[in-house]
Amino acid sequence: MANWIRFLHQQEPKFGTIADNRIVVHSGGMFDHCEATGEEITSEEVELQIPCVPEKILALWNNFHATSEKTGLPKPEHPWYFVKTPNTYAPAYSQITRPGTCQGKILFEGELGIVIGKPCNAVTAQDAKDYIFGYTCVNDVTALECLFKEEAFAHWSRAKCFDGFAVFGPGITTDIDPSKLVIKTFLEGDGQVQERQNYPVSDMIYSPCEIVSHLSHDMTLKPGDIIACGTSIGAGAMKDGWTVRIEIEGIGELINTYSDS
Amino acid sequence: MANWIRFLHQQEPKFGTIADNRIVVHSGGMFDHCEATGEEITSEEVELQIPCVPEKILALWNNFHATSEKTGLPKPEHPWYFVKTPNTYAPAYSQITRPGTCQGKILFEGELGIVIGKPCNAVTAQDAKDYIFGYTCVNDVTALECLFKEEAFAHWSRAKCFDGFAVFGPGITTDIDPSKLVIKTFLEGDGQVQERQNYPVSDMIYSPCEIVSHLSHDMTLKPGDIIACGTSIGAGAMKDGWTVRIEIEGIGELINTYSDS
Repeated sequence: MANWIRFLHQQEPKFGTIADNRIVVHSGGMFDHCEATGEEITSEEVELQIPCVPEKILALWNNFHATSEKTGLPKPEHPWYFVKTPNTYAPAYSQITRPGTCQGKILFEGELGIVIGKPCNAVTAQDAKDYIFGYTCVNDVTALECLFKEEAFAHWSRAKCFDGFAVFGPGITTDIDPSKLVIKTFLEGDGQVQERQNYPVSDMIYSPCEIVSHLSHDMTLKPGDIIACGTSIGAGAMKDGWTVRIEIEGIGELINTYSDS
Repeated sequence: MANWIRFLHQQEPKFGTIADNRIVVHSGGMFDHCEATGEEITSEEVELQIPCVPEKILALWNNFHATSEKTGLPKPEHPWYFVKTPNTYAPAYSQITRPGTCQGKILFEGELGIVIGKPCNAVTAQDAKDYIFGYTCVNDVTALECLFKEEAFAHWSRAKCFDGFAVFGPGITTDIDPSKLVIKTFLEGDGQVQERQNYPVSDMIYSPCEIVSHLSHDMTLKPGDIIACGTSIGAGAMKDGWTVRIEIEGIGELINTYSDS
């Protein structure tokens, strides 16, 4: 198991593995031909960036039995997904901000993110594991009021693609079995810590390997692409000046602040 | 007015302007600080690529009065749009192929494409013109049966994002007023030429400048990003072995073949 991060060190973009606050700098590509340079630094010396630069982020909706039962939505015949465009990408510790044109709730959605490691086209669920580089934490931020404002068209692209609305990181964990993982989301502010989400990967309708298989039949997935597996019960509005923290044990803690103005 | 293309010349990627089959090679960036190198070649010597590499393609639905009246769909309160991911990008003369998992009609949709030239955030319709680099032809290919297969969720991302489903080019035309343009689509095969679309930009519900304004309030648009303005009456199924040609006078002819297997 390793945890990979990308960061700025003395203004220079670098990447490497992190353990116990010690970063082992690597050269080459994170997904191919990389090796340790011999340079080691500490986490205090760096500014985190997004851990990879996806060509695309695909994100699922209605992928948990618990939410499907609550909403009454049918089980998807094929994973239900939308796209988060590159302007949405934001790292750990960035500030999420309400878009100037949006009223209503701005939702956090804590999710498991799959990071693709190899070009992937029409693979089986059995083979999908070989194409997954690792896993990360995702906050799939949503402007809820935009989404269902017009009856004849659901504005998935608009509601999901404001700048900074796909927060992911802090790193990518490799060689981990996701099936036993639990996703937790906390809101923290005014001296309070509120646990708002706590749900297991095992409740997914489509497992990570099944998702990769299905989506790889729709489009070629590329190294660095991310698939956010959908959220479960408890997604809700962020609060002005509060922190949102998504925690997946073994993967990391994704911490961001939210500003309502 | 100039027509910009990207191409391979003796395996090397280059770009420049084309007129009367003569290409004036440029260096620098197409959207910034470019200048003629002095090299001139002919179009026979090059292999066309997509004319720019968008960070994202956004594409509209239901943006024409004629289609809105035909379908009975209401006028959008905000442009209705979806995303075409980078795996969909394909140049003029590429072959469009039916995805292995799709039954039913694979549609051509001839459209005007706006190419953004400068980073663009929350601009007015009046100012939008300054952020538009030029215009191109788009074939917004669609796997229709996938789109509305599940009642509770419209599969826009799936139906629109198979590999090679966003064909655009052959070039980008600058300094042209789009308001008088007409988009035509022809199917050609078995010795026949069928005109299938012939509709004016003037029938758009949201004009190109209004579209750029609205979408720039949703997300930062970047140089090279493309917005496909939606299609009007006549979009239909492509035919095995036939050619589809989208023609916008003053901009160009986008020609591709279609294979059903």
